[in-house]
Formats: sequence, C-alpha cells, structure tokens
Amino acid sequence: MSTAGKLQGIFTPNIVPLDAHGEINEPELRRYTDWLIERGVHGLYPNGSTGEFTRFTPEERRRIIAIMADQTRDRVPILAGAAEANTRETISACEYYHSLGVRAVAIVSPFYYKLSPSAVYAYFKEIGENTPIDVTLYNIPMFASPIDVPTVQRLSEQCERIVAIKDSSGDLPHMIRMIQAVRPNRPDFSFLTGWDAALMPMLLVGCDGGTNATSGIVPEITRKLYDLTLAHEIEKARELQYKLVTLFDTMLYSADFPEGFRAALKLRGIDAGESRQPYSTDQHLKMETISRTLACLLSEEGFADQPVGGCPVGAERIDPEQVGRIVQGVLAELKQRGLA
Amino acid sequence: MSTAGKLQGIFTPNIVPLDAHGEINEPELRRYTDWLIERGVHGLYPNGSTGEFTRFTPEERRRIIAIMADQTRDRVPILAGAAEANTRETISACEYYHSLGVRAVAIVSPFYYKLSPSAVYAYFKEIGENTPIDVTLYNIPMFASPIDVPTVQRLSEQCERIVAIKDSSGDLPHMIRMIQAVRPNRPDFSFLTGWDAALMPMLLVGCDGGTNATSGIVPEITRKLYDLTLAHEIEKARELQYKLVTLFDTMLYSADFPEGFRAALKLRGIDAGESRQPYSTDQHLKMETISRTLACLLSEEGFADQPVGGCPVGAERIDPEQVGRIVQGVLAELKQRGLA
Amino acid sequence: MSTAGKLQGIFTPNIVPLDAHGEINEPELRRYTDWLIERGVHGLYPNGSTGEFTRFTPEERRRIIAIMADQTRDRVPILAGAAEANTRETISACEYYHSLGVRAVAIVSPFYYKLSPSAVYAYFKEIGENTPIDVTLYNIPMFASPIDVPTVQRLSEQCERIVAIKDSSGDLPHMIRMIQAVRPNRPDFSFLTGWDAALMPMLLVGCDGGTNATSGIVPEITRKLYDLTLAHEIEKARELQYKLVTLFDTMLYSADFPEGFRAALKLRGIDAGESRQPYSTDQHLKMETISRTLACLLSEEGFADQPVGGCPVGAERIDPEQVGRIVQGVLAELKQRGLA
Amino acid sequence: MSTAGKLQGIFTPNIVPLDAHGEINEPELRRYTDWLIERGVHGLYPNGSTGEFTRFTPEERRRIIAIMADQTRDRVPILAGAAEANTRETISACEYYHSLGVRAVAIVSPFYYKLSPSAVYAYFKEIGENTPIDVTLYNIPMFASPIDVPTVQRLSEQCERIVAIKDSSGDLPHMIRMIQAVRPNRPDFSFLTGWDAALMPMLLVGCDGGTNATSGIVPEITRKLYDLTLAHEIEKARELQYKLVTLFDTMLYSADFPEGFRAALKLRGIDAGESRQPYSTDQHLKMETISRTLACLLSEEGFADQPVGGCPVGAERIDPEQVGRIVQGVLAELKQRGLA
Repeated sequence: MSTAGKLQGIFTPNIVPLDAHGEINEPELRRYTDWLIERGVHGLYPNGSTGEFTRFTPEERRRIIAIMADQTRDRVPILAGAAEANTRETISACEYYHSLGVRAVAIVSPFYYKLSPSAVYAYFKEIGENTPIDVTLYNIPMFASPIDVPTVQRLSEQCERIVAIKDSSGDLPHMIRMIQAVRPNRPDFSFLTGWDAALMPMLLVGCDGGTNATSGIVPEITRKLYDLTLAHEIEKARELQYKLVTLFDTMLYSADFPEGFRAALKLRGIDAGESRQPYSTDQHLKMETISRTLACLLSEEGFADQPVGGCPVGAERIDPEQVGRIVQGVLAELKQRGLA
Repeated sequence: MSTAGKLQGIFTPNIVPLDAHGEINEPELRRYTDWLIERGVHGLYPNGSTGEFTRFTPEERRRIIAIMADQTRDRVPILAGAAEANTRETISACEYYHSLGVRAVAIVSPFYYKLSPSAVYAYFKEIGENTPIDVTLYNIPMFASPIDVPTVQRLSEQCERIVAIKDSSGDLPHMIRMIQAVRPNRPDFSFLTGWDAALMPMLLVGCDGGTNATSGIVPEITRKLYDLTLAHEIEKARELQYKLVTLFDTMLYSADFPEGFRAALKLRGIDAGESRQPYSTDQHLKMETISRTLACLLSEEGFADQPVGGCPVGAERIDPEQVGRIVQGVLAELKQRGLA
Repeated sequence: MSTAGKLQGIFTPNIVPLDAHGEINEPELRRYTDWLIERGVHGLYPNGSTGEFTRFTPEERRRIIAIMADQTRDRVPILAGAAEANTRETISACEYYHSLGVRAVAIVSPFYYKLSPSAVYAYFKEIGENTPIDVTLYNIPMFASPIDVPTVQRLSEQCERIVAIKDSSGDLPHMIRMIQAVRPNRPDFSFLTGWDAALMPMLLVGCDGGTNATSGIVPEITRKLYDLTLAHEIEKARELQYKLVTLFDTMLYSADFPEGFRAALKLRGIDAGESRQPYSTDQHLKMETISRTLACLLSEEGFADQPVGGCPVGAERIDPEQVGRIVQGVLAELKQRGLA
Repeated sequence: MSTAGKLQGIFTPNIVPLDAHGEINEPELRRYTDWLIERGVHGLYPNGSTGEFTRFTPEERRRIIAIMADQTRDRVPILAGAAEANTRETISACEYYHSLGVRAVAIVSPFYYKLSPSAVYAYFKEIGENTPIDVTLYNIPMFASPIDVPTVQRLSEQCERIVAIKDSSGDLPHMIRMIQAVRPNRPDFSFLTGWDAALMPMLLVGCDGGTNATSGIVPEITRKLYDLTLAHEIEKARELQYKLVTLFDTMLYSADFPEGFRAALKLRGIDAGESRQPYSTDQHLKMETISRTLACLLSEEGFADQPVGGCPVGAERIDPEQVGRIVQGVLAELKQRGLA
C-alpha cells in the first residue's frame, strides 16, 4: 500500500503545445503548467489521451514528463502516462518517471488489439510486480481493451503498487460496481472518473476525483464543481455541472479529439500550435465555426473575448438548448463513426 | 399543458401474474396491485417492458389496464403502456385507457424496425395531436428506436399532451442534455429514469422520478432511496443505492428479462406463475441457483426466508463483491449477446 | 423430414399495398401477386419484414395470407410469416396458414426483448414440436434476437418440421458455419439469404436461394442473377450483382425501411399507397429526391420512365460511383442510428 | 500510377519469431521467410497485425523489414507495414523501406483515437504526397479508424502513389462498393482482402488477392484455394474454403490474437517463441487444449503429427460441426469483449 496518500481531486490531462515545426514547445508547456497550477487543479496528468501520447515518439514522451516535473517542482502531484509498446518498455518508462519524482504513473490498457480480461490481467500483473512507482489503471473502453470489474478487483488484491483506476467509460453503475468490489479490501484505492459530463454524480456515488480534460481549459469551473459537490451544495453543483456538460460536449463532439480542446485553449491564451494529425480543408473551415462558438461560450464566463462580429444576443443569444441541438447533430455524426 | 400535476415519484412497472394455463391471473394481479400501493409506490405502470406487453394480445393488454384501474380506485395514478401495431391502434388504446380514468399513457418508440429521428418524431406527433390523454414518451434504445434530444425538444414544444419522458438508457449526461433542452420552455415536463442502478444520481441531476422494476420487488427500498435522495441525505442514499445495484444487477443480468424479477417476486409472496416465453432445461436449472441467491439477498433485508440449506455465513457470507463477480460474469454473457 | 421438396430459389418478401384509408388494398395486392409470379420469382413471402408485419393487427396478418394464397392458386409456393405475440398465438397462426395450403411458415426470432440462445432455442422447439406445417427459422440480428449456429444445429437435429433458415445477417462466414453444422445431418435443410447485396457469393458458397426484397421491385434482375450464378457464369453474374448492390443500397439506405422499396414499386406501376408509419415534412421532401434517383436507375434497365426533367447525361450521367457516394452518406446516417 | 505491376495474389502477414529473451529471433525469422516462399505464397507482409507491429519499438520494426528484405532477395515482393506515431515518422519509415527495395508499404489507418473520414483522408493524403514508395491503405475497422468508400475513392483519384487497399472487414458488399467506386478510374488499383473466411467469395466478386494470416500457417491450402477460385473450380474451391473457415476460426477465436496462429505455427515446425504480451495461468492452460485441437486439425491435412494420446476417431472423430460448436462458444466470448 502506498505511503504517499490517496490520489484525490482533479488531475488535469494536458495538451502538449507544439511549435511551428511541430516540435514540443517547451516554453509554452512550462507556461501552461504554471497556468494550470495557479488556477487550482490538484494535480497534472501528462501523456494521457488528451495529451496525444500516441502521436509522440518514446523519447518525446519522456521529455514531456521531464519538462513538467521540473517545472512543477512538487507544487502538485504528477500522474504520468507511461504506456509503451510492451511490458518491458513500459516498466522501463515507469523507472524513469520514478527517478523524476512523479507521484504515480497511469497505464492505459493494451490497445489496437482488444485483449481478453485474462490477458489484460496478465499485462497489469507483470507491470504491477515490477514497477518501482505507484500505478493507476486506465480504463477507456472506447479506445482500448476494457478492464472489467473482476480484473480490477484481482489486481487491487494482488498488487500493492496498483493504487487507483481512472475510468473514462462514464458509466455510473459500473463505477459503483468497481467501488463495491475493491474498496472493502483496499480503502486506500482511488477511483477517478475521466468523464467530465458526469463528474458531479460520479463524486456523489463515491469517486475520489477526476482526470478531466475540461480542467485543462476551464480549471476554474472544474475545480469549483469539485468543491461544491464535496460540500453537498447540490443545487449549485448541478447548475455548474449543466454548464460543464455544454462546454464538454462542444469541445469533445465538435471535432476530432482533442482539436476542440486545442481551439478552446488558444482562446484562453495558451498557444498549443497545430496538431500533428493533419487537417483536411473542410476540417480547417469547420474549426473556424467551432472556435467562434467556443469563444461565445467562454466569453459568457469571462474567460475569453467575444469573437469579431460578436455573439448572438437576446432572442438569438446562444443558449444551452441551441448548443444542445448542435451537439446532438455532432453526437449523431460520431455515432455514425462508431465513436459515441 | 396538463392540469393534473406533474408526474413525480416512483412508478412501478409491474409483472402480470399468470395462472396455470398461462392466462392472466386476475385475483393475484389485484392482490399484487394492493401489495404495491400499501408499500408506498407513488404510481403504477402496467404494460411496460417488465410487464411483457409484447407477449399479450391487444385484447389482453386492455384487460390488464382495466383490472388494475378498477383495483387501484384512484389511490395512486396509473401510467398505462399503450403502444400498439400502428398509430391508429395506439390512439384507439389511448382513448380506451382515458375512459378508464388512468393518469397518463406511456408509449414506447417504434420497435423491430429502427426508425430515423424524423420518423420517430412523426410517429409521436401524430399520436400527440390525436390523443385525449397525457402521453409519456418511452425511450429504451436497447429495445426500440432511440428518441434523441432534439426530438424530445420538438415534441415537448409542439404537443401539450406530451408531458413526460421515461428514459431507460441509464446515461446521465444524456438525461442532463434532455433536461437542458426541454425544461426552460416546459417546466411542467417530467423526466423519469428507468435505470434503477442510477436512480440516486439521476434524481440529483434533476430527474422527477423513476419507473423502476426493483420497486415491483422491493418497493420499500426503492421508495426509501427516493426519499433519502430528495432529502439530500447523500451518505445514506448512497449506501442504499449500492444495495439496489446489487439487487438490480442480480435480477436483471442473471436470466432472460424479466425472469430474475419473476423469481424474486415469488420469494416475496406474489406468485406470477410461469412465463409465456418457454424455458429450456438449462434455464430451469439455472433459475434454481438464481432463486437461492435472490433468497439470500432478500433475507438480508428481512424480505424473504433463507433458502433450505441456508445462506453462506461468516467468511463465506454472500457479500457484494461475490455478487459483483457473479454479475460481471453474466454481464459478460449478456454483452456477448449484444444486450449490455 | 418434409416430403414437399427442398425450399429453393428466390422467394419475394412483398410489400402490402394500402388504400387511401390505410386499409389493405386487396385488388392491388392480388394484381401485385400476379405481377410477381409472371416475372419469374420462385415463391412468395408475405408477412416478412418488407411486408411490415408488425404494423398490421393479428387479424390483418391472417387476411393478407388468405388473399395471397387464394390469388396464387398453387402457381408458386408461399412462405408465410407467422410470428405472433407468443408461442400459443404463433402455433395457432401456423395451423391457420396450414389450412390455407401454404408451403411453409417463416418465424422470426423473438424481438423487442433480446433473448439468450437458450431461450431462442426453447421458443422454436415448442413451436417446432407443435406445428402442422414446415417451419423456416428467420434470423435477422439487426431487428431480433440472434439465432446462433449451435441453436440452428440443435433445432435441425431435433425438429423435422424445421426445414430451413432465412438469414439476413449478410455475413458470409456465418452462412458457411451454419451449412457446415447442419447439412451433413439434414441434407434437406434449406439455407436462404435475405441479404441481396451478397446474393451471388452466398449462392456460390452453398445457399439454396434467397428471400430478397429487390425481387419485389426488379424480379427480372434478381431472378436472372440467380440463374447466372447457378450456371457459374461468374463474370456475367458479377456484373449483375454489382448493379443489384446499387439498387439495393439506394432503396435500403435512402429512407426508413421499407419506404425506398415502396417508392420504387410505385415507379414500376404497383401502387402500395402510403405507409402506416407517418412521414414528417422532411421525409416527404426527401422521398421526392429519392424517387427521382430511383426513376433514373430503373429507367436505365427499361423498368421505368425517366422523371420529368430527365436524368443526368454524359459527364453528369448518374454512375455507380455517384450513387456510391450518396449511399455511403446514408449508410453513415444509418450507422449513427445503430442500424448498419 | 505504379510501373511495377498490380499487387496480386496471396501476401502472407507473418508472425515474428522471438527468442528466449523476447528478442527478435533472426535465424528463425530467416528460416520462416524461406519456408513461406518455398510453399508458394505470392508475397510477404511483415509488420502487419499478425506481425504484432505495435509490440515492437520503431527500431525493431525497421530491423524486421531489413532482415526479411535481405533474406527474400527479390524472390517475392514485400509489402512492409510502415505505420508509426505520426505522418512525419511514417514517411521516414517509408523512405527507409524504399531504400531496402521492398515493393510497397501498407499503412494502417490511425488507431487508438477513432478519426473522422476527413481526418483519415488528410492523414493518407499527406503520406501519399510525400512517400517515395507505393502505398497500400489498410482498413481494419475492428482495430483502427475506418476508411470509408468515399475516402478510398478520393485518395485513389488524387494520389498515384496509393495503389491498393487491404480490407479486413470481411464485408462483401463493402468490397463491391469500393471496387465500383475506384476501379473505373484506377484499373491498376488493387483490392486485397484480409478476411480468410471469405477469401473465395471475395475473389469471385472481384478482389485481386489477399493478405491472409492462414497463409502463414497453411500456405499450401490458402494458395490452392486462390488458384482453384481463379480457375472457377467452384465446387473444389468451396470445399477448401469450408476447411479454411474451420482452421481460421479455430486459430482466430480460440485465444487472444495472434496466439492461436503462434501455437499452430509451432506445430508446423517454426518456433515463434513466447508472446511479448504475458499470459495468465488460465491462458497457459487454455493454450494446451487449443494446441491439441489444432494438432488434430493439421494432422488431417498431413501438416502435423497427432498429439500424444491421439485424436478422436470414428463417432468421436473431430468433425467440422464439433469445431463449429467450440468456435461459436469462443465467438460468443469475443463478442462479449466487443471484438466480433
């Protein structure tokens, strides 16, 4: 069992800013790290899905953690994404991140191939027994092999080094089943949700925190929602959760992930550059519209200027229902691609 | 807009007891109706999915509502499942149920064929404009054509007679999106969840109640969970929600729906008879085991005797984790059939 | 084992023409029956999915078979869709259809509820043991509980009355697995594919025929494709199969099923009237465009006049790629609804 | 347009043998390369899904191609899997493989993130315009972002360097739609199927060949099936296709991919060593049973000795139906994991 205290609160999965050549923009990454810490997030979570870990080389992934560990200087704990090509490479990355002093690693379940529960178990068992650093399991069934409840339970009982799970399924009853299966024997085990649209109810049914992409864009809101929920200020929390759903949906479903978040980040003054995944012409055009919509949403909270030409007002004012309709359209598009 | 007050609270989707010939067992149905009302459910919901409406003839479906309306004598409101082969037949059923004095009907989205949002809209529009009775939309995407958010919004704005939606998707953010889209213009519109495993968080994000199959078996628990949640007794509600997840999962995933509920109901003293859907030999054997498990779970709450031979005690005592593992196995089986 | 000979060839699942009041248009149904027989289909298959069996009352379903049996006068065999609310009602329908002299019934797997293989087996076993008429299993996993290979095998070995399966999954390897599992012990058992877009390859891997909706619209093409394939005229068959894919895709994916087929049927001179499933305004508009596209496709084969205004010619001529792109768009829309 | 001739025939996606330390076993990889060429495969396809490309480091992936190119010495063409972390890294790999003299590269669609058609297009467009070597698109929707028909069409029209698609969806109508959309304008474009269970019908509807994992284990059968099909020896081809389905299903669905293929390869005398993906205890036990089943299947073709203790004979003889039942069980397991 870890002696470093339970993982709790909001851990931000950060985008990695790139420069004009598509290389890691170290100064902007350092500035972004400070920006997040100053706005109250409890921890940082580089090399996650939002961090586009698959689009970097193994060397670049290490460099990202090194820069952020150095910049953070222990002000907040770091959860470092450590998945590599196989267990040997992953354990080697764990050792390196341990040497950098990060709090724990997060390891996504094997992806591309969809593995059976037995194989997922064997994978994490081997890592859990050979890592010098605390491990967070990372379950994101839309992208990687699912980690089912009995597997979480077995690993939690057999590997002290495995101390948490980040679950991005957004499935409330699934979270309840995991907590029921694990918590009695491992009260120190932490449950983090990666699904911002259900953060408030997830915390109310027993989660310890979240790794939420919205906290990289509007850390003020995500953090406040966390605090209100823990204080059982149900009405106020609900109102904020509704607002977060609108923002989350717009950023998540309006473009190929994580481009909606990248566009919103720029509006907040952090220049993440252009994606390594090339855009087609129609994507460029679409992003202009999305960026205007995001600017209007963020300006309502005082987080961005209105776009040139202004935002709809009065009867035309952008309201949640309108956004809802847009989002539903995109949700539908996503479903058509098997993504939602 | 309805003048009869908003639909709120727990509406029980009841199983229809059958006699030894597979016919509707009217005396037991009347006794069950009283049993439920005495245990505090806010309303009744016959001819729902739990009520196996598709396995009865059109004439039987009418008889079920007539019996229950007569037995209820306005002690609680009735939400009558009214879906028939086409809009003409459905409207005719609405008229009949209206003449019986039920509070409202619930109409499942067209099934077998999976219809587009446009077609789902046209279907409910025609019914909404020609019904003499309040209508609850019934969204159960695992069985029927999904009713998406823009469709709910359009219908709520155009048809005063459409006053509620029952949503059995169990998707929290989806519920939030619906409420955001509809409530500002239709504050009287009611949102009911059919997913017992998320009842507490659904209520906390803004639902008005639920149509929950567990309330047909353990109405004491479902009702108490509702009350605790509305009183913001978060810790107590959470504890009860966890218990309900275990019961719900065991009844839902252990057998072909709704056989787990039928077995549990028998343990509570209501004899629903045998299903019209025939059992294979292995299903008969499996139901014996399930029945023992259910007896142990119910006996812990004082709702049933322990099975002959007793329940596991001490170290072997049936605990949530054990059930969790069983349920996960069945969940997996279900997924294999494309059902979960 | 049936003495009536193996089910073979193309069985047409026919739409039921409706009159201006939405009632069965008996004269047009009789005319359509003759029209199909004259164009060479091997058999008729009323009350199938194309026949919208769920949108008729039990009484109407019986009347449809009675009319068609009377009109057919044994010129071709009839496969009558016989699924009703439960096994008792279904067996009663089987008895009635037997009394009308139809060749066999087809019974879709239980729908709405998605049943386990054990329950699907028990359902067909009870029917198979109590029916006076040959039974075709009907597997259409996108609409009803799947009938898996071991279930088909068990039923084929235990019930002589079960003589065929109609499979609409369109999955070639699945068809091969079924044939491998059943044919050695039941050489008389027939395998029919309901997936027109794979008719030629299905026949080449061992199918005995098809129940193909295109044969209700362009029976000349479907029949010719069948003949060419059986004669191993591979190049010619392939060319026709490609053409059929374009027609099938356009009719299937351009509108809510079976509206594309209804529109095409009208172009061929059979007036099926308006659907019992109401249209929204945008569906009406969309159907006009679809109807023009279908008219152009059918006019190329000499099966319909060009629409007013003509069809694209020369460089603008409608070519398979263009249609392909349209179809892909609709396929995508369908996927979004979980239908493809 | 490529001047090197159209890609045709059977390209073998080979497993990479590992030594006792989990390192690339170069001598065995060279021996396996020769073994395959001697048995008549038309080409080799290293770094594919069967080749576990994601479990090797970027450096190892390059070494695998270098070894095989050296060993092949132009006896057969090589299709080299070249997908790396992003377009820049992928193009760099293309350049290296070009310098080794391989015939073409195959690039899987972006995975982990599921991208929109626009983004998939932009990805391949950038690569297609900057590669010195012919490119095969690789569509495997169960593992990676789908490449839809309009995207294949656009890319084929805009990028001469893109000369083929390997499609592992196993969907016949989809293959027909692709060929219809592309072949008229690009008669040199090649269509390869990666779905062994449909090889014969895929060739009959117009495919140019296959990249088939079975050809790495029983190249004699896969090659003979190809030849018989091209000669339109339909009955003989069908018989062999059925046999291949049984072998394919057993290897594919009996264990986490590609472990069934690895076990079968060992029975054929090529020692691929142990997987880099660790096994759990129950996987080890399961593989023993699978290995016996595979030995019996292979011994029937004279490709392996019977296992110690022999194979079932007479009434107990292993027959396709038996295997069918086993395979169905595993298929079901797979579905439960969302894999089939």
